[in-house]
Amino acid sequence: MTVSSLSAGSSTGSLKTVAQMTRQAARKLAVLSADEKNRAIEAIALSLSEHADDIVKANAVDCQAALDDNLAPALYGRLKLDATKLQGAIAGVRDVGKLADPVGQIQIHRELDEGLVLKRISCPLGVLGVIFESRPDAVMQIATLAIKSGNGVILKGGREAVRSCEALVKAIRAGLSKTEVNPDVVQLLTTREETLELLKLEGLVDLIIPRGSNSFVRFVQDNTRIPVLGHADGICHLYIDRAANIEQAVAIAVDAKVGYPSACNAIETLLVHGDIAADALPALAAALFDQGVELRGDLHTREILESNNLSTGRNLLAATDDDWSTEYSALTLTVKVVETLDQAIAHINIYGSRHTEAIVSDDTDTASLFMDQVDAAGVFHNCSTRFSDGFRYGFGAEVGISTQKMPPRGPVGLEGLVTYKYQLVGQGQVAATYSGEDAKSFTHRDLSL
Amino acid sequence: MTVSSLSAGSSTGSLKTVAQMTRQAARKLAVLSADEKNRAIEAIALSLSEHADDIVKANAVDCQAALDDNLAPALYGRLKLDATKLQGAIAGVRDVGKLADPVGQIQIHRELDEGLVLKRISCPLGVLGVIFESRPDAVMQIATLAIKSGNGVILKGGREAVRSCEALVKAIRAGLSKTEVNPDVVQLLTTREETLELLKLEGLVDLIIPRGSNSFVRFVQDNTRIPVLGHADGICHLYIDRAANIEQAVAIAVDAKVGYPSACNAIETLLVHGDIAADALPALAAALFDQGVELRGDLHTREILESNNLSTGRNLLAATDDDWSTEYSALTLTVKVVETLDQAIAHINIYGSRHTEAIVSDDTDTASLFMDQVDAAGVFHNCSTRFSDGFRYGFGAEVGISTQKMPPRGPVGLEGLVTYKYQLVGQGQVAATYSGEDAKSFTHRDLSL
Repeated sequence: MTVSSLSAGSSTGSLKTVAQMTRQAARKLAVLSADEKNRAIEAIALSLSEHADDIVKANAVDCQAALDDNLAPALYGRLKLDATKLQGAIAGVRDVGKLADPVGQIQIHRELDEGLVLKRISCPLGVLGVIFESRPDAVMQIATLAIKSGNGVILKGGREAVRSCEALVKAIRAGLSKTEVNPDVVQLLTTREETLELLKLEGLVDLIIPRGSNSFVRFVQDNTRIPVLGHADGICHLYIDRAANIEQAVAIAVDAKVGYPSACNAIETLLVHGDIAADALPALAAALFDQGVELRGDLHTREILESNNLSTGRNLLAATDDDWSTEYSALTLTVKVVETLDQAIAHINIYGSRHTEAIVSDDTDTASLFMDQVDAAGVFHNCSTRFSDGFRYGFGAEVGISTQKMPPRGPVGLEGLVTYKYQLVGQGQVAATYSGEDAKSFTHRDLSL
Repeated sequence: MTVSSLSAGSSTGSLKTVAQMTRQAARKLAVLSADEKNRAIEAIALSLSEHADDIVKANAVDCQAALDDNLAPALYGRLKLDATKLQGAIAGVRDVGKLADPVGQIQIHRELDEGLVLKRISCPLGVLGVIFESRPDAVMQIATLAIKSGNGVILKGGREAVRSCEALVKAIRAGLSKTEVNPDVVQLLTTREETLELLKLEGLVDLIIPRGSNSFVRFVQDNTRIPVLGHADGICHLYIDRAANIEQAVAIAVDAKVGYPSACNAIETLLVHGDIAADALPALAAALFDQGVELRGDLHTREILESNNLSTGRNLLAATDDDWSTEYSALTLTVKVVETLDQAIAHINIYGSRHTEAIVSDDTDTASLFMDQVDAAGVFHNCSTRFSDGFRYGFGAEVGISTQKMPPRGPVGLEGLVTYKYQLVGQGQVAATYSGEDAKSFTHRDLSL
């Protein structure tokens, strides 16, 4: 087991010991003021700048090893952390310092009776377990978000980024050592075995955040009883209603498919109402073909496109049953003609991954029905699914996107790293006073927040 | 498989089919107005009154069978549903009608850019699976809470209450059949095998609410991937600080232990600061012994009590290691002397079940440290742990008490039966406009709720 070399205590003993130490340190972090946490974040930024050379050098060694190992170019791009990218990431650290403190927010403030006052107040979760692939710059963002939200964090980076991660965590902990925050709140794991061990630390780790491929996220979900923030699939649909503005539909379809095909909020399926299909499909297909998109259509779609001479045989295939539940992460899009709004909603509720679903329609009643009945974290009307994003929503940061039904759902900002507790302060009150024959009544009077 | 005899469609086919039908009906319920849902609740109340004779008769048969089977008296008491108890439950149904509609509440309202408006709005979860033991009156409360929150519900009652549950669900569905709400939103299962099947319906059932013994709740938690609202253990502590008012401490300890020993918010362990133990323990023990409480003390506790001649040998035992993690649900209390606040917090964070923890102290700084650092859904100062309850908190209803870290946490009212979705309404906006070199800025302007 390897943990940050700065932490003498954690270089021996089991991962459980590391988690307990992190938890202990986090308990002290939880009660620090926003100012104290922000000073710690500034100290991290300064220390990262001071250690910039070491970090860039460590990353260069990782990059060289990756080249020697023939790492895929996309992964290599994510691994690379040069001086410019590092400065950008350090600016990002300072941005987190500027966000509002998510801890200590009073959500309920209620007098139960005279001198018996209830508060529901936001508080840190405790310890986060964050497992990510490649990108070493994630270390800086995650560690800072954890401290801002009052949580300890156990980081596990990709094998190929191990030297970069170690240099980054060393700098972060050096920065913290000059502040009120115990450096033990940030821990780094480096071996694959530790990932499995981490997933078993129920009771010591409060939330797992996996950042990586769909299959990786699913693996994490299947192998832990700790709550997981994230989503495996992003199968999003765009439904072109009979009352759609076709020009708008085309622009949105192109943006939602082509802008960033591997994004989870990109669309995988286009549903087109039968009444508008003959007009809309040729326009949609022409624009998408122009951008190099391959379409996989149902029979009706293919008939319309072929009769418009829009198919070259290479850009239009027949959709198979599997296509409706496939996330391509590429310039491929399935297309289906539906006869009714209800059919569109039913298709989405079966095949969608509850991420983001959009309708294009000038009929607001239809759009309302769609948004009410489609079961997804995001239901959009006349705009691109690509807006489904914590930064675009104005959260200042995005911790992950959840497709679970229970909150937190959808793009999750700092709010997803805190929970709440009920604080009840009395003057000796006992429950017996409020029950039985001569029961006193509660006042249940809401007080100002 | 047995389902409500009123539902022709559900009397054949698998439980999966029942769940799909419930889901379909719930989708229509989800979009009804508060008035429409309240009219359905009134129709349920009326129908229950009209069917009162049938319900009481069915319950009498269940009760006779229970007597023949020698059911434990406590269970028999819960099973019994006479005309008076039924009228009370019907009044409870109408009370749910008066609660605020938890659906459609706008939690975030934000302009992302001109003509691009985001709302985060509360919406039903979909379908609830509620598994309860004995008490047939739970059927009425749960079905009504489900409808109020816009959810379908699949109920599974105890075997001994099957006739009562069937009569109740028949009446509820007959009432619904005269309203906008499809009776299929309320389903009843009656065999034990169906419980296991229900727990496997991930994707069709959104939340499981188990109501029963600790071991039953743990069984449910261990056998489903569907989120579970509830808690297995209720191991709550009362810490008597060195700065405690002893009279207050005694009153709170007696209330928290004796008022209702089998409640989850009753205390199982008393922690007493060493500086006050010699004064406080004799007073605490005398009052608790008076109420028939058996104490299990650590060595220090026993020494103090024995030197005060307070032990009779029957009411004071030596605490064993197991005692610290046992929920007695009886008039038994473990007692430990701690030397510091930190030791008290550490003990609670190890042995507590994250339910409700209380401190008695006249030192507000000490109390703040306790409330900040103890990890529990409820942290109380100078009042009884027994206040940890949805009705006492003023929620109007209690769906369950959650001891999980992630929200919803603690006593959960109707709010726990809804989630939220993000609705984004635009005028054709695409994400490309807001990225790249000429990126337009978001306005991120909060609008009135």
